[in-house]
Amino acid sequence: MNATPKIKADNELGLLRSRYQATREISKALITPLSAEDACVQSMPDCSPAKWHLAHTTWFFETFLLEQLESYQCFHDQFRVLFNSYYNAVGEQYPRPARGLLTRPSLADVLAYRDYVDEHMQSLFDAGPHMEQQRVIEVGIQHEQQHQELLLMDIKHLLSLNPLRPTYREQDSAGASPGEPFHWTDHPGGLVNIGASGEGFCFDNETPRHQHFTPAYKLGSRLVTNGEYLEFINDDAYSNPALWLSDGWACVQEQNWQAPLYWREEQQGPKSENNWFEFTLHGERKLNLDAPVVHLSFYEADAFARWAGARLPTEMEWEHAVNQSAMNLAAVNESIVSRLLHPSARVNDGSPYRDKLSSNSGNLEQVFTDVWQWTASAYLPYPGYVTPPGAIGEYNGKFMSNQMVLKGACCVTPESHSRASYRNFFYPHCRWQFAGLRLAR
Amino acid sequence: MNATPKIKADNELGLLRSRYQATREISKALITPLSAEDACVQSMPDCSPAKWHLAHTTWFFETFLLEQLESYQCFHDQFRVLFNSYYNAVGEQYPRPARGLLTRPSLADVLAYRDYVDEHMQSLFDAGPHMEQQRVIEVGIQHEQQHQELLLMDIKHLLSLNPLRPTYREQDSAGASPGEPFHWTDHPGGLVNIGASGEGFCFDNETPRHQHFTPAYKLGSRLVTNGEYLEFINDDAYSNPALWLSDGWACVQEQNWQAPLYWREEQQGPKSENNWFEFTLHGERKLNLDAPVVHLSFYEADAFARWAGARLPTEMEWEHAVNQSAMNLAAVNESIVSRLLHPSARVNDGSPYRDKLSSNSGNLEQVFTDVWQWTASAYLPYPGYVTPPGAIGEYNGKFMSNQMVLKGACCVTPESHSRASYRNFFYPHCRWQFAGLRLAR
Amino acid sequence: MNATPKIKADNELGLLRSRYQATREISKALITPLSAEDACVQSMPDCSPAKWHLAHTTWFFETFLLEQLESYQCFHDQFRVLFNSYYNAVGEQYPRPARGLLTRPSLADVLAYRDYVDEHMQSLFDAGPHMEQQRVIEVGIQHEQQHQELLLMDIKHLLSLNPLRPTYREQDSAGASPGEPFHWTDHPGGLVNIGASGEGFCFDNETPRHQHFTPAYKLGSRLVTNGEYLEFINDDAYSNPALWLSDGWACVQEQNWQAPLYWREEQQGPKSENNWFEFTLHGERKLNLDAPVVHLSFYEADAFARWAGARLPTEMEWEHAVNQSAMNLAAVNESIVSRLLHPSARVNDGSPYRDKLSSNSGNLEQVFTDVWQWTASAYLPYPGYVTPPGAIGEYNGKFMSNQMVLKGACCVTPESHSRASYRNFFYPHCRWQFAGLRLAR
Amino acid sequence: MNATPKIKADNELGLLRSRYQATREISKALITPLSAEDACVQSMPDCSPAKWHLAHTTWFFETFLLEQLESYQCFHDQFRVLFNSYYNAVGEQYPRPARGLLTRPSLADVLAYRDYVDEHMQSLFDAGPHMEQQRVIEVGIQHEQQHQELLLMDIKHLLSLNPLRPTYREQDSAGASPGEPFHWTDHPGGLVNIGASGEGFCFDNETPRHQHFTPAYKLGSRLVTNGEYLEFINDDAYSNPALWLSDGWACVQEQNWQAPLYWREEQQGPKSENNWFEFTLHGERKLNLDAPVVHLSFYEADAFARWAGARLPTEMEWEHAVNQSAMNLAAVNESIVSRLLHPSARVNDGSPYRDKLSSNSGNLEQVFTDVWQWTASAYLPYPGYVTPPGAIGEYNGKFMSNQMVLKGACCVTPESHSRASYRNFFYPHCRWQFAGLRLAR
Repeated sequence: MNATPKIKADNELGLLRSRYQATREISKALITPLSAEDACVQSMPDCSPAKWHLAHTTWFFETFLLEQLESYQCFHDQFRVLFNSYYNAVGEQYPRPARGLLTRPSLADVLAYRDYVDEHMQSLFDAGPHMEQQRVIEVGIQHEQQHQELLLMDIKHLLSLNPLRPTYREQDSAGASPGEPFHWTDHPGGLVNIGASGEGFCFDNETPRHQHFTPAYKLGSRLVTNGEYLEFINDDAYSNPALWLSDGWACVQEQNWQAPLYWREEQQGPKSENNWFEFTLHGERKLNLDAPVVHLSFYEADAFARWAGARLPTEMEWEHAVNQSAMNLAAVNESIVSRLLHPSARVNDGSPYRDKLSSNSGNLEQVFTDVWQWTASAYLPYPGYVTPPGAIGEYNGKFMSNQMVLKGACCVTPESHSRASYRNFFYPHCRWQFAGLRLAR
Repeated sequence: MNATPKIKADNELGLLRSRYQATREISKALITPLSAEDACVQSMPDCSPAKWHLAHTTWFFETFLLEQLESYQCFHDQFRVLFNSYYNAVGEQYPRPARGLLTRPSLADVLAYRDYVDEHMQSLFDAGPHMEQQRVIEVGIQHEQQHQELLLMDIKHLLSLNPLRPTYREQDSAGASPGEPFHWTDHPGGLVNIGASGEGFCFDNETPRHQHFTPAYKLGSRLVTNGEYLEFINDDAYSNPALWLSDGWACVQEQNWQAPLYWREEQQGPKSENNWFEFTLHGERKLNLDAPVVHLSFYEADAFARWAGARLPTEMEWEHAVNQSAMNLAAVNESIVSRLLHPSARVNDGSPYRDKLSSNSGNLEQVFTDVWQWTASAYLPYPGYVTPPGAIGEYNGKFMSNQMVLKGACCVTPESHSRASYRNFFYPHCRWQFAGLRLAR
Repeated sequence: MNATPKIKADNELGLLRSRYQATREISKALITPLSAEDACVQSMPDCSPAKWHLAHTTWFFETFLLEQLESYQCFHDQFRVLFNSYYNAVGEQYPRPARGLLTRPSLADVLAYRDYVDEHMQSLFDAGPHMEQQRVIEVGIQHEQQHQELLLMDIKHLLSLNPLRPTYREQDSAGASPGEPFHWTDHPGGLVNIGASGEGFCFDNETPRHQHFTPAYKLGSRLVTNGEYLEFINDDAYSNPALWLSDGWACVQEQNWQAPLYWREEQQGPKSENNWFEFTLHGERKLNLDAPVVHLSFYEADAFARWAGARLPTEMEWEHAVNQSAMNLAAVNESIVSRLLHPSARVNDGSPYRDKLSSNSGNLEQVFTDVWQWTASAYLPYPGYVTPPGAIGEYNGKFMSNQMVLKGACCVTPESHSRASYRNFFYPHCRWQFAGLRLAR
Repeated sequence: MNATPKIKADNELGLLRSRYQATREISKALITPLSAEDACVQSMPDCSPAKWHLAHTTWFFETFLLEQLESYQCFHDQFRVLFNSYYNAVGEQYPRPARGLLTRPSLADVLAYRDYVDEHMQSLFDAGPHMEQQRVIEVGIQHEQQHQELLLMDIKHLLSLNPLRPTYREQDSAGASPGEPFHWTDHPGGLVNIGASGEGFCFDNETPRHQHFTPAYKLGSRLVTNGEYLEFINDDAYSNPALWLSDGWACVQEQNWQAPLYWREEQQGPKSENNWFEFTLHGERKLNLDAPVVHLSFYEADAFARWAGARLPTEMEWEHAVNQSAMNLAAVNESIVSRLLHPSARVNDGSPYRDKLSSNSGNLEQVFTDVWQWTASAYLPYPGYVTPPGAIGEYNGKFMSNQMVLKGACCVTPESHSRASYRNFFYPHCRWQFAGLRLAR
């Protein structure tokens, strides 16, 4: 009778083990299209080499689980420093901007390192990890999944800089999927609950669940499209300081931004025509005006919203609205190993948000499927937030300054990471993540 | 009977006029201790020369009031560009980091410019400005008062870099004033009103008044002292990454911070002794352990709070607590022309916040008198905030990214600027403003 | 009979004393047109404030003469550091790029410092300085004269950045003076003597006199003019990498050079017209096509010569040719206090160097009068050069890398500095000195 | 009878062909110890990836020979830009600091590119290249040999930054070879001939041969050793500005130089002991005090010479002395594919240059075998130097500013590059080339 918990525990442990294995497999599958050279080079300090992602995620399991075991012999002494990202509590770190200099260990050595650690992890699973170990394994899996997304972001950035414009993986876009016409969805606001509900895994930064008061608000039913963003460009928005935050305007001028990252204008033609191309993980493609705009900085998202007579939603508005949504918000179920790695077009009805002065309640679309959505909220601790003890406590809390929250998920996010309480965050000038926007009023 | 409003309006206009005159006088008085050379030089891009402050505040009245009048002949054509700070809507701006190169116009010319504009402003007052003009005059006065504080901050920075350690103004510190022992003040929280109440002047960023839900919280009854901060330093806090936000730790290392700005250790002695000196507008002085710590970055304030087992208050907690305070929170009434321009010591009872595990309700001290207090809140628009139309709309809204809110006022703040809803803001790495902290839990 | 040497010595000492006084007077006269603000600000790290020049030249006499005297009480203890330029042997130096921050000591204090040192120098003259002291006084005079030229260069740079385009001193250009048509002067070369002849003062870097072998060569009889340089510009030279040294081309692109420093094109008109203006110490003026081109970098001089099918002369060619010149090469005798501070136009005959394939012997013109002339020679020690002992030995030798030699003198050079063996030197990218060129083949 | 020239021509062409093949083979052999990752990464902007060297040297033959042939189909259109180093006349260049981002083309593709070009070159050889083509082939061979040395320099720099301290190739040092005691060799000087004699290949910068007058001089019979350089370090030379050129001292402070590049002090021990290690292409090794010091900047070589009471030789002194040397100066005959890639120790007699006040004539040792030797001469054109026409004319002339000449050859120089007239050149701050010094007086 009291066997049930045990069985449940067994099942859960079995599930954890298979999720561990699947996650580890996916990371390896992601580098299949890459040469050792592709996996070694770092295209900017914000990015890491694919090889480094493979090693660092392995280092996480080694450091926080295996090295606690007396019997464990570490794979290589110096990997402790080389593949530590930013955990000061664990010790010294190899400098981030120099990660691309590590031609040794080779990709083959790093794969051997992965095998070695996986083997020892199997022994740990065999021996039956205690609860705290299980918790750390769970964090390790989630951590590796986050790095899978980073790996795809980083490799896209590297390939985009190559004049040969290489393709990460050949894949055709599907045709545009059907969608409802744009409308504003109404949300009454009030005292709402924000933060992880306690069901399923969450990161520390999603806690504690707490109350927040929000006035009534409206959200756009769908994401802003390339076509709409092109109007903004064609209205000379990149030359009009009145549309921009002061720091954003400084960025536009210093970086000479003229369009989202990865856009390229083939030839200067009449504005009415679309001469733009977009670099994707599936090669450079003609810009699809019906697909969501992606690879915007916060400043661009904010300026677009201002230009559109709207604003960005707060993270609380977004989370509350999604929690209330009657629609099935399930994200893509397809693995990032085979999925289309670019936002998908939707058949729109030609009536953009601009003509929609009235609004009505209704469902949100494109919530977890295409692009992360910039919010107007700074990434700060929730009331009562406490940094977890130990080295793992460095996971989220120490980044809580100067960054903005993004909600949702995107076309390169592993499928289990779609939940309303998830808080992604980037500096407002960053553009290499798959970020777009949804309007609010 | 209906004469009353007219009289009231006359009185109000008279008051506005005398406040205009007083404000203009104070600006001139502030440069009395300065040579033309002192008033010309720019010590870093964040600072402006005193002469520039004198001219820019004058430009404000000329641009937003006098230039609207048909009859007005501008003082000098090129001043429109030279003394425009950041108003894109008004036109081009002379580059900020080059303000110190403007040896011409001379200080004498700038003073003549002030006289010219003042004279025309008197004519405007004589003619009777309409309501919108009165509103702009009010903004101009507030704006000039803000620049008086900036002028003192900037001149302190310039003089501090001079190896001769010059004194801005000779003035003795008063003895330490009496104060209650440290205690935590209790605040129940709930749904509270935040933002300007509608009485008296406020800036656009203090509006609209709105509801905010805050859990119960405690605030320190007084500011953190130099003595307490010295303990933090002596505990090797500047070498311990665990105490710092990630961006803060990067700053500590890049800037080689070892102590607050303007502190200098005479000689490396035993830690138990105080070998520190502090540069003030009244010359360099032995560090007073009972005075509030000042010239901290947000990162240092945040790290201190973490080290102390506490946190920084949110701007809403601070504002609500001050609004509830039974105590008379009136700020210093003395003008910045004669006032002590450094935080004052308080006789403390030797029982620091560390020993105060229990807490009780009670009054807040040092609210508007000594140092601005860093909060844990990012500087963002209030729900429903709308940028005012026209060029004056560039006043506050466009800075709403990457900065943190500070509450209160400080020893160099003009006396009428002390109100609970005031939102000051700086980048988290800035230290030349008079910023310290009050703890929260 | 043996009284003669004594008398001669007395005369020489008297001459030294009056030259000391005259030099000191001229420095003060140079700042007459400047406000204290003008004299305080530093426009770029290469430049120093006028006040700093006044103080540093005084520091030189104080440090190398007065401080050696037991009885001397130094004017201000910290001036030793503040006004040391680069003499490591004397001790610490205040950082060069921060010289403009020194609003204190004030200009008045620096003038008092000058008076104090001058007074003590008079006592030294009264007492009769010994030979070594006389030698150091001589160096001090020469040093101060060099700084007079630097002061004029630096103040020109500062004023040029001011949008009000201030005038240092009102003065009309004289009309163009008559000149011979351009011709190539022939020089047979051979084993020639280079370096100071031993008569009169020279700097250490002009010694030792030594033999150098040079093949036969030709020099342009006059300097290259603005008109000729404008042809180079109009031939798109600034967009043609084939004309430039590799480092020069990098400079052109990084600095976006389009013309000499201080040139400004009023409006883009037809190339055939001269729409150019030139900032001078006497205000901005229409570009005079018959005046020598000035404010070129070495890279521009070198590129022009290449474009013209010629080359720059070596320093030995230049020196030898000038030594052989039959013409009276005496420089302007007018003091820099009253002289025109800009190169003068010459009536040319409309037959430029381009048409002069044949050549003939003849005289060189514009040797010491208008602009320093870039040579093809790196600034290196002469064979057998020995650094003088002591702190004064830091005067020239330690700069013998990465710089190029310029020969002649210019319109802001004190009159006694014109001699064939003089070696001026600047980095190849520098443009704020009065540098132009003379062609060679 | 007149068949002889034909046979000679055939022989010469056959020799050219076999030298072409051998050179191409050696380049490939040099990357045998490298992974594709090693060959792809760029460790600093001055360095290029090994893969890039392989491709660029191939591009040279393709561009300057094959592309002139009508029948030739280029291997890949974009390689023209990707692998152009700095030939403006050929067209656009891919930016140098981004060479390490080119993960595509892969190393395999670059090797295929080499094969393709080699095959077409064989056809060209079969067809019988005309004289101008032969001349370009010769330049191409010499060019590729220079890049072989660069490849070894660059790969050493990359591996040195890897915390795993990888070995390029395992190889033991030979024991110290016997050597004569240090002595000064006497050279009478006079009017000497400088520049290529006309026998054998030379680069344009070695011409024209011309006369130069040099006073009598002495040269050190051997190179300066690690042991001698360590004395300089232990005399606190890196903290003594009096020993340094001004630009050199700035470098020492900015770069925090404490020792030659690649030296590492294991632990701070007593100065009398040698705790130093040196990174070599054969791994990190204990510093051999009898081996020549290597990886010095010009500034360090110059400061050492000054400290030693000597100076650096001029390039003319060095060349003349070597031309006069009775000794057989033949360089190492062993290929860089198998040779020791580090300077070799010599058994010295314990009587260093310091004790050698007298001197005698005698032979120079270590002329072409170990390290390049910095000279006191700036890299400038010889009198009468003319840039060759066409794109190949960009080879040397445009670098003639800001660099210093090095003479000799080093342990990684291909064997046929050892001749007295060879002029190598680097910026004075560069240290990653194999540069040491020989003293002069």
